[in-house]
Amino acid sequence: MKETRICIIGGGGRLWAIQFMKDLAYNTMTHGTLVLYDIDKQAARNNVAVAEQVLRVNNSEGRFAVVAIDDLGEALSGCDMVIISIEPGKTSCRYGDLVLPEEYGILQSVGDTTGPGGIMRARRALPIFFDLAKKIGQFCPDAWVINYTNPMTLCTAALYKAFPAIKALGCCHEVFHTQNFLAKKVSSWFGVSTPDRREIKIDLTGVNHFTFVTKATWQGHDLMARLVEDLKDPETFADGTEVALKRLEQEKWFDCDQKIALSFLRDFNTLGAAGDRHLAEFVPWFLTSDENLHTYGVIRTPYSWRERTAKEKREKVFGDEDLKASLSDEEGVDIMRCLMGDKTMVTNINRPNEGQISYLPLGRIVESNGVLEEDSIRPIVASDPPLAIQNLVRQVSDVQEMTLQAIWEKDDELLFTAFLSDPLMNLSRDKARELFDKMLKASELQY
Amino acid sequence: MKETRICIIGGGGRLWAIQFMKDLAYNTMTHGTLVLYDIDKQAARNNVAVAEQVLRVNNSEGRFAVVAIDDLGEALSGCDMVIISIEPGKTSCRYGDLVLPEEYGILQSVGDTTGPGGIMRARRALPIFFDLAKKIGQFCPDAWVINYTNPMTLCTAALYKAFPAIKALGCCHEVFHTQNFLAKKVSSWFGVSTPDRREIKIDLTGVNHFTFVTKATWQGHDLMARLVEDLKDPETFADGTEVALKRLEQEKWFDCDQKIALSFLRDFNTLGAAGDRHLAEFVPWFLTSDENLHTYGVIRTPYSWRERTAKEKREKVFGDEDLKASLSDEEGVDIMRCLMGDKTMVTNINRPNEGQISYLPLGRIVESNGVLEEDSIRPIVASDPPLAIQNLVRQVSDVQEMTLQAIWEKDDELLFTAFLSDPLMNLSRDKARELFDKMLKASELQY
Amino acid sequence: MKETRICIIGGGGRLWAIQFMKDLAYNTMTHGTLVLYDIDKQAARNNVAVAEQVLRVNNSEGRFAVVAIDDLGEALSGCDMVIISIEPGKTSCRYGDLVLPEEYGILQSVGDTTGPGGIMRARRALPIFFDLAKKIGQFCPDAWVINYTNPMTLCTAALYKAFPAIKALGCCHEVFHTQNFLAKKVSSWFGVSTPDRREIKIDLTGVNHFTFVTKATWQGHDLMARLVEDLKDPETFADGTEVALKRLEQEKWFDCDQKIALSFLRDFNTLGAAGDRHLAEFVPWFLTSDENLHTYGVIRTPYSWRERTAKEKREKVFGDEDLKASLSDEEGVDIMRCLMGDKTMVTNINRPNEGQISYLPLGRIVESNGVLEEDSIRPIVASDPPLAIQNLVRQVSDVQEMTLQAIWEKDDELLFTAFLSDPLMNLSRDKARELFDKMLKASELQY
Amino acid sequence: MKETRICIIGGGGRLWAIQFMKDLAYNTMTHGTLVLYDIDKQAARNNVAVAEQVLRVNNSEGRFAVVAIDDLGEALSGCDMVIISIEPGKTSCRYGDLVLPEEYGILQSVGDTTGPGGIMRARRALPIFFDLAKKIGQFCPDAWVINYTNPMTLCTAALYKAFPAIKALGCCHEVFHTQNFLAKKVSSWFGVSTPDRREIKIDLTGVNHFTFVTKATWQGHDLMARLVEDLKDPETFADGTEVALKRLEQEKWFDCDQKIALSFLRDFNTLGAAGDRHLAEFVPWFLTSDENLHTYGVIRTPYSWRERTAKEKREKVFGDEDLKASLSDEEGVDIMRCLMGDKTMVTNINRPNEGQISYLPLGRIVESNGVLEEDSIRPIVASDPPLAIQNLVRQVSDVQEMTLQAIWEKDDELLFTAFLSDPLMNLSRDKARELFDKMLKASELQY
Repeated sequence: MKETRICIIGGGGRLWAIQFMKDLAYNTMTHGTLVLYDIDKQAARNNVAVAEQVLRVNNSEGRFAVVAIDDLGEALSGCDMVIISIEPGKTSCRYGDLVLPEEYGILQSVGDTTGPGGIMRARRALPIFFDLAKKIGQFCPDAWVINYTNPMTLCTAALYKAFPAIKALGCCHEVFHTQNFLAKKVSSWFGVSTPDRREIKIDLTGVNHFTFVTKATWQGHDLMARLVEDLKDPETFADGTEVALKRLEQEKWFDCDQKIALSFLRDFNTLGAAGDRHLAEFVPWFLTSDENLHTYGVIRTPYSWRERTAKEKREKVFGDEDLKASLSDEEGVDIMRCLMGDKTMVTNINRPNEGQISYLPLGRIVESNGVLEEDSIRPIVASDPPLAIQNLVRQVSDVQEMTLQAIWEKDDELLFTAFLSDPLMNLSRDKARELFDKMLKASELQY
Repeated sequence: MKETRICIIGGGGRLWAIQFMKDLAYNTMTHGTLVLYDIDKQAARNNVAVAEQVLRVNNSEGRFAVVAIDDLGEALSGCDMVIISIEPGKTSCRYGDLVLPEEYGILQSVGDTTGPGGIMRARRALPIFFDLAKKIGQFCPDAWVINYTNPMTLCTAALYKAFPAIKALGCCHEVFHTQNFLAKKVSSWFGVSTPDRREIKIDLTGVNHFTFVTKATWQGHDLMARLVEDLKDPETFADGTEVALKRLEQEKWFDCDQKIALSFLRDFNTLGAAGDRHLAEFVPWFLTSDENLHTYGVIRTPYSWRERTAKEKREKVFGDEDLKASLSDEEGVDIMRCLMGDKTMVTNINRPNEGQISYLPLGRIVESNGVLEEDSIRPIVASDPPLAIQNLVRQVSDVQEMTLQAIWEKDDELLFTAFLSDPLMNLSRDKARELFDKMLKASELQY
Repeated sequence: MKETRICIIGGGGRLWAIQFMKDLAYNTMTHGTLVLYDIDKQAARNNVAVAEQVLRVNNSEGRFAVVAIDDLGEALSGCDMVIISIEPGKTSCRYGDLVLPEEYGILQSVGDTTGPGGIMRARRALPIFFDLAKKIGQFCPDAWVINYTNPMTLCTAALYKAFPAIKALGCCHEVFHTQNFLAKKVSSWFGVSTPDRREIKIDLTGVNHFTFVTKATWQGHDLMARLVEDLKDPETFADGTEVALKRLEQEKWFDCDQKIALSFLRDFNTLGAAGDRHLAEFVPWFLTSDENLHTYGVIRTPYSWRERTAKEKREKVFGDEDLKASLSDEEGVDIMRCLMGDKTMVTNINRPNEGQISYLPLGRIVESNGVLEEDSIRPIVASDPPLAIQNLVRQVSDVQEMTLQAIWEKDDELLFTAFLSDPLMNLSRDKARELFDKMLKASELQY
Repeated sequence: MKETRICIIGGGGRLWAIQFMKDLAYNTMTHGTLVLYDIDKQAARNNVAVAEQVLRVNNSEGRFAVVAIDDLGEALSGCDMVIISIEPGKTSCRYGDLVLPEEYGILQSVGDTTGPGGIMRARRALPIFFDLAKKIGQFCPDAWVINYTNPMTLCTAALYKAFPAIKALGCCHEVFHTQNFLAKKVSSWFGVSTPDRREIKIDLTGVNHFTFVTKATWQGHDLMARLVEDLKDPETFADGTEVALKRLEQEKWFDCDQKIALSFLRDFNTLGAAGDRHLAEFVPWFLTSDENLHTYGVIRTPYSWRERTAKEKREKVFGDEDLKASLSDEEGVDIMRCLMGDKTMVTNINRPNEGQISYLPLGRIVESNGVLEEDSIRPIVASDPPLAIQNLVRQVSDVQEMTLQAIWEKDDELLFTAFLSDPLMNLSRDKARELFDKMLKASELQY
C-alpha cells in the first residue's frame, strides 16, 4: 500500500481520535504521515504524544510520522485523506440545544442530529464546514474526506455545498449495532455462535440516524420474516420502564433493546437501523414524555453528564493498556484502505444521492450501501421502503435541506421555517418562535 | 347548448342541492333532465318537489324534467353529468370523528378532510365511492362527474382508483374565499370598489383545503408583495381571542380573518388559500389548544351543532323567496356549461396530477388551476412554492395515498400507519393505537 | 389599455415587420411608441416611413410614435415589449446551409430549423441572441420578449441561457395551418362552412416545427377519430408527384397537403402539426430523394429563390393598398394584448418546459398550449403522445441542447457531436466531418 | 456450497453449453443435478453424453447427475438455477434477418440484437420467452434465471414482462473484451505484463452491445485520460481496409481493433464497450457501405457462414482434449456461485433499471455494474455519460420498448413503428414498409 498523508481535523475531544489511531496501528499495511490539526492548537500538540504512544504500544513505531500543524492550509497541503471530527462550539452550547427545548416541553434523547438541538448545532457547525471545504478545495482537492461530526448529514452536505467537487463521505457506526443485534438473533434462531456483523447482509435506506433495513439475510436466510414473527411474542414490546430506570441509574445512556427499531417494523413494515435514542427523535410519538420513552427501555442523555464527561475526556491520561489495538468495529481505517486500493468493500456510507435513493431528490446526502474501491465510491441502488417510510424520511431530508440553505444564505427566517417544520415541533407557532429566538441567543449565534 | 341529462347523487342534506338547482335555474341556456338519487329514497323523492318549486319560482318551468329514480344504475344510465354530494354515514358517526380525538387531546376545527376525523370519514366514504365509480363505468362511462363530498381529495381519488377512465373532478369553493379576501384588499389598497373575485388572478398549488397561492395579481399589480408589506402592521397578527369568543357565541363557525393563511405567508412565504379552520388542521402548531386557536380568531365547529342542524336541514320547508336564484359564487353549473361546450374558463379544480404539480407523484389528486372547455379539462402547470410548503403538502398527500391504499385493500393495519403519520398526531404510539381502535369501533367499521 | 413601448429588433427583411405593423394598426386599443432597431441602421430608418404609412392608411395616425434608434441599449430602454425577427448572417450564408449538404446527399426542404443547415444557422444566430438577452437584462429586464427568428427553439433557448430571468416566448404560425387544415375537414365532414381555426381545439406537444396533435375537437366532435378513418381512403396517400412538379413550376414552396403530417398519423398514431416541408426534415425517411419527397406533394425551397427574393423584399415599394389591415392569422399583437391585460387567450407557444411536456427535461424550450393573461404565461400540461413520438421529439430536443451548449461554450467539437447526431445525418462519420468543416468555413464562423 | 439443481434450456447448438459444462467442472465447489432441456429433444439427450464426458475428463464424475427431460415443466421443477441459451427459429430464418435488408441497402454486421434483423429475431424469440417465464413462475418461481440468448435486452425484458417477480439477469461477455483491450494497453503504457481483466475497474452504462465506459482505472491510474491521448496518434484511426480484407479471407468475423469503440471516444467523449461489429449497428454512420466499415478493420458476418457452421456445430464430435477445463473468461458459473452464497462479485449485468441508469425509465433492461451476493443482485448507480451518449442509448432503448410492447400485444403495426424508428433505417417510408412485410413473411411469422 502506498504511503499516505492523513490529516485529522479535530480530535481534541480525544476518544474518537484515539480509536482511529489504534485502528491505524492495527492495520499494519498502512504507513506515512499523520497530521494533527485542531482549533485548540494545544490539544493537537498534546495528541502528538498520545499518537506516538499508540504506535509504540502496538509495535508500530516509525510507521507513521506524527506532526501537529497550527495552520489549516498547511495541515491540509498534500494530504491524501482528511478525517474530520470536531465539536462545534463549546460544550456549554449544548445547554441551549437540550435544556431550553425541554423547558418548552420538547424532549430530545440526543439532540445533535435533528430536532431543535440538531438545528442549532448545525447552525454552529456548518459555517466551519463551509470553510473547511473551501480550504480543502484550495490545498488538497483530490483528497478523500471522511466526516464523523454530527449532524452527520448536514456537515457532509455543507462540504459539498461549499466545494461541489469534493470527494467526501460521512461515516457512522449506528448501522453496525443493527447488524450486531441481528447477529445475536441469528445465534438464537439457528443455534450457532454469534456471527460477525459483516455476515449479516442488509439493504439499507434513509438518512443518517434515521436509516431503515428493507432486507436482511444471513447465509441466504430471510431475517426480516423471522423478526416479523418475533413481533407476535408479547415479550417484544413488554414494558421496559424498569430497564430504563436501571439504565438511568447506571448512566447507560447508549444502551437499548431495539424496541423502537422494532416498533417501526410493527407499524411501518421496516426495521429501524440506528440506536433507539436516535430513531426516537425523528418522529413525534416516542418523546411525548419520559414515561413514554422509558416503556421502550430508552433514556435521554442529560446535559449534565455531557458537561461533566467533556472535562474528564480532555484531562484523561492513558495507560499503555488503554492503547493496545485489536480488531475494532469502526470502519474509518478500512474505508481508507479501500480508497487507497488495498481492497474492495460493501458498507453503509453517507453520500450525495446519485439515484441510490429513488424517493429523495438528487444531491441530498443519504445513507445506504456503497462499493468502495481504489479512489472510487459507487452507491448501490437501495430497495424502496414502503411509502410511509419514504414520507417520514423525506420530511427529515427536506428540513435538512432548508437548514442547509438557511445557514448557507445566513437567513435565520428560513432557519425558523426549518425549525417549525421539524417533526419534534409540537408547540404553538408563537411559542416555537419564542424558543427559537432564545436558542439563537443562547448559542450566541450571529452572522 | 345541448340537452343535458344530469344525475344528482345525494342531496338529501338539501342545502347544497338546492343551491345547485338555483344555479341551474339561473343559467337559462341549460335544459334537459334532472335525475335525483339518494340512498334515502324518500329524501330524493321529496327533493323532486323542491326542484320543481325552484324552477317555477325562477320562471324556468319545463326547462328541466325532474325525476327521482330508486335504482342507482337506472339513475345513471344515459347521463351526461353526475353530481355527487353525499354524507357518508349517519350524523352520529361524526361523534367518533370529532369527540373521541378531543378526549385524547387532539383538537380538530372541521375534522372531515384530514386528521383522525378525516381518515375515519374516508373509511366510511371511500367504499361508497369505489362502488359509485364502478357503476358509472358500467352505466355512463363518458359522463363528467363532479364531486363535492369531503374528504374531497380522497373521494375523488377513490373514483379514479375504481374506474381509472372516469372523467371526474372535485369542486370546492374555499379558494374563492381567498380571492374575495384579496378583492377586499384591492379595494382598500387602490381605493376602488371591491372587484369581482374572478378579476383576482391567482396561481395555485396544493391539495384540497391545504392550497397555497404563489402569485396573485389584479390588473397586473402584484398583490403578494403588498400583502407581505401588510405583515409588518402589528394589527395583522393582533390577538383575535375576543373576536373568536364572539364568533363562538354567535355560532359563526365559518368566519375567519385569514390570520392563519397570513401566518403561512409570514413563516413560509406563501399565502394559505382555504379558510383558516381548514388550514389549521394540516399542521401541528395551531390546534395545540383552543386558546391558541382563538388568538387567530378561529373557533372549532362543535359536534353538537352539527347534530342539531342536520335535523333542521332535513325538515326545513322552503318559501318561494328562499328559492329565488341570483348569480352565486358556486361554480358547479359554470363548470357544466364549459364541459358542455358553452364557454371556456380557467378555475381551480381537483384533478389527478399529470404534471401540473411538480413536487407530487403523477396520479395524486391535486388542486390547481385548469382550463375547462367542451368535453375537456387540461391542467395548467402550477408555479412551485418554496420547499417548506412542498414538504408540508407532500406529507398530507402521502398520508392520503396510504389511506386510499389501505381502504382499497381493506387493510386496517396500513390505515393505522396513515393515522400515525397524520400531522395532527401528537400522541404516544400506544395512545394513538388505542384511539384508532376506539374510533373504528365508534364508526362501526368492518370489512 | 396602457400605453406600450414596443421595440422591433430586425425587420429589415420587411415582410414580417410590415404584417406586424398592420396588425398593430388593426388592433385599435393599442397605442404608444414603436422603436425600430436593425443592425442595418438604414433599413430601420427606412422602415419608419413604412410604419407611418401603415398607420396613416389604416386611420391610425398618432396612435403610435415611430422612431428608429441606432444604439441597441437605447432602443431597448423602457420598453414593455421586444419583438425579435432577424436574419442571422447574409443571405449568402444560406448557400452553405443548403447547397453543401446537398452535395453530400443530404437534402433539406427548409434547412433553417434542424439538419446541418439548421445547426449552422444556429451557430450564426445564437451569439447574437446571447448578446440581445444580456442587453435586455440590462435595459428592460421586465419587458416581454417575443421571438420570431428561426431556429425558433434554439434562439428562444439562447435568450434564457444568457438571461435566465427573461420573460420570453417563441411565436410561430405553423400550428395554425394544421388548425386550418382541420377546419376545412370539418366543413366537408359536417357540411358546414369552414369554421375559424380558433374553433378547432387541439392538444399539442413537441418542439417548434416538429409538433404533434394528440387530440382535436370541434364542438365536441373527435376529429382525430375521423381523420384515422380517412387514412383508409386510397386517395389520402395517392402519389403526389404531379402536384409537386406543378408546385415546383409555380414556385409554391410553402404549399402542402398534409400528406407527411398524415403519414405520422398512419405510422405513429399522432398527427404532425407543422407544414410538411418542416416535418420532413426531422426524420430520415422522407428526404431520401426528391422523388420520394415529391410523392407527398412536397418540394424543397431552393437556395436560388431565397437569394433572388431577399433582394426583391429589400427593394420593394409598398402601395397604400398593400398596407390596408384586416384580421390576420398572425398572433403577435394578440399575444401582446393578452400580456398587457386586455384579454385571456389559450394558444400554442414556445416556452421553457416547467412540466407541460412530461417526456422532456425541465428547462428545454418546447411547444404546447399556454394560457396568456396580463403579465403572465402559464403552460398547460400537454397530453402524452405515444412512446414512438416521444422518442423522435426527444432526439431532436437533445440535439438542440447539445447545439446550444456547444455554441455557448464555443466548442465546435461538441457542435460536431450534435451535427453527427442529427436525424438527417446519413453519411459515414468521416464524410460527416468533412462536410461539417466545409460548412463552418463557408459560414466564416470563428470564435 | 449447497447442492444445486440447474436446468439448461437450449444448448442444442452445443458450443456455448459445452463451455458452461466445462466451467462447472472447473469450479470444484459446485455439485448437484444438471437437467438438460431443448425443444429438439434428441439434441438434449445427445448432450447428456457430452456432459458426462466433460465431467469425466475433468475428474468430476459424480459431482453432477445429468438428465435430459422432455417436458419443460418437469425439467424446471425444483430448480435453483435456470440457464437459457436458445436459437429462436431455424438457421434459415437468419436469411430474412440478414439478406433481405441487404437487398434494400441496409447492411448489418451481426443482425441479432438491433436493426431490422434484431427486430425480426425478437419477433421470433419473445413469444418463446413469454412462455418460458410463465412456466418458471409456475414451476420454480424462486429460481435464478440467467439468459444468454440474443437479442439479450429484449429476451430478458420478455421474462420480466411475462413474470414480473422473476429473478433473472442477462449475461454477456462483450464488456470483458473491452477490459482485455484495456489490460493490453496497461501492459504497453506501464511496461508490466498484461493484468487480468478483473483488475481493470470500469464504470459502465448502456444497453447490451451498446454499452459505454465512463471511467476506467488500473491501480488507481486513470486509463481514459491515457486513451484520449492515444487518439492523437495517427495510427489510431489509420485505414484498416487491408486488415479487414485479410479478416474476410480468414473468416475472422469476430476480430476487431476497437477502432469503432475509439471513434465513440473521439466524437462522444466515451469509450464504446462492446465489439466493434456490435457497436457499428446502433448508429447510422459506420454501415453506410462495406468500404466504410472496412476502414475500421471490421467485417460483416455473412449468412452463408452461419448456415454452414450451424450444421458443423450440431454434428461435431468432441475429443477429450477439447473438453479439458481451465479458467475461462465466461462468468455464468461465477455468477451462480455468488447467488448460491459462495462469494461476492462486482460485474456487468443486464437487469431492470431500478435507478442505476438515471437517463432511462425505470424497468427497462439496462447493462451496468452490480453486486452479486447470496440470493441477491443489487445494481450499482452508473455514472452519467454525456448527453449525446444518453441520447443514442435512449433511442435504442425506446425502440426496444416499442418492440417488446408490439410483440406482447401481437401488434405488427406497432412493430413497424419500431422498425421505422430503428437507427439503421435509411429507407423511404414506403420502402421500409415493403421490406418489413417481406421480412415478416420470410420469418413465417403469424400470431
